[in-house]
Amino acid sequence: MTGHNLQDTVALLTRTPAALDALLRDLPETWTFRNEGENTWSPFDVVGHLIHGERTDWMVRTKIILQFGEDRAFDRFDRWAQVRESQGKSLGELLDEFARLRSGNLDELRALNLQPEDLERRGRHPVLGVVTLSQLLATWAAHDLTHLHQVSRIMAHQYREAVGPWTQFLGVMQCAGHSS
Amino acid sequence: MTGHNLQDTVALLTRTPAALDALLRDLPETWTFRNEGENTWSPFDVVGHLIHGERTDWMVRTKIILQFGEDRAFDRFDRWAQVRESQGKSLGELLDEFARLRSGNLDELRALNLQPEDLERRGRHPVLGVVTLSQLLATWAAHDLTHLHQVSRIMAHQYREAVGPWTQFLGVMQCAGHSS
Repeated sequence: MTGHNLQDTVALLTRTPAALDALLRDLPETWTFRNEGENTWSPFDVVGHLIHGERTDWMVRTKIILQFGEDRAFDRFDRWAQVRESQGKSLGELLDEFARLRSGNLDELRALNLQPEDLERRGRHPVLGVVTLSQLLATWAAHDLTHLHQVSRIMAHQYREAVGPWTQFLGVMQCAGHSS
Repeated sequence: MTGHNLQDTVALLTRTPAALDALLRDLPETWTFRNEGENTWSPFDVVGHLIHGERTDWMVRTKIILQFGEDRAFDRFDRWAQVRESQGKSLGELLDEFARLRSGNLDELRALNLQPEDLERRGRHPVLGVVTLSQLLATWAAHDLTHLHQVSRIMAHQYREAVGPWTQFLGVMQCAGHSS
């Protein structure tokens, strides 16, 4: 459980939908629908991806760990599911859906009343191998942050020429995302 | 003015204080007061830095361009001013102050009723040399984004051990900030 505090995790998870809402709702499409080039995501896509995580990843995996331990590996996560699932929806609808799903998942998490020994329980990730429930829940929070990091980078990318020589002082303009 | 739209800039600048407020207010200090190591900033420091920019940078430089053009270089920006200025204040107070100053600056910007030809006016940056008003205003927005990018990275850094093997899937954990 190094460096993991469940209350801190829940506190952050509670705030992400409101933070993305305050940043993105009704913002011009320059900021919300443009991406960083072919096969990259827009902020709209990122919100769809967060929704898919609420539906298929975090609490689903929590329950697999609690029920099956290492005996049953998690299903793989579909990183492009949101292209299909977000079709025909507005960004406002996605932000509402994300907030609703997150709130329900946090209610469910609190109802589990997890104790320190529960957080040490182990599960099996299809690629990473053995992981703990503590690591899964910490990753849920860090995953919000990696996508907030990504959204701010995607948005900044739209102004990479507009800022002229200032680009050299703006760390976000040098960020390529660190993904494989 | 490549890629710069003043309405898009104002739309983003309007939202940043609320987005940071939704993310950070009343969050446990694990997230808001820790930094990335010696001589780095916490989210608390970043909000102080944004306040200093509202007081001394963006609108001050806008007015220097409109009044003096290239004849008078901007003053240098003090990147550590917030250490002094934020002393004794709570994060909630800083978030309130940032929102108030930003709102006032945007009122002042709108009152200038800038036209496309105004945006082409030139000023002199002490390091970068000749810049346009358009570039300055685009940078104001991109500067918000670089610090949102930074805040999400600082926060994720607190969970770099807690996430265990998932760290390799989280781009933000590989980000070193890209600053000189």
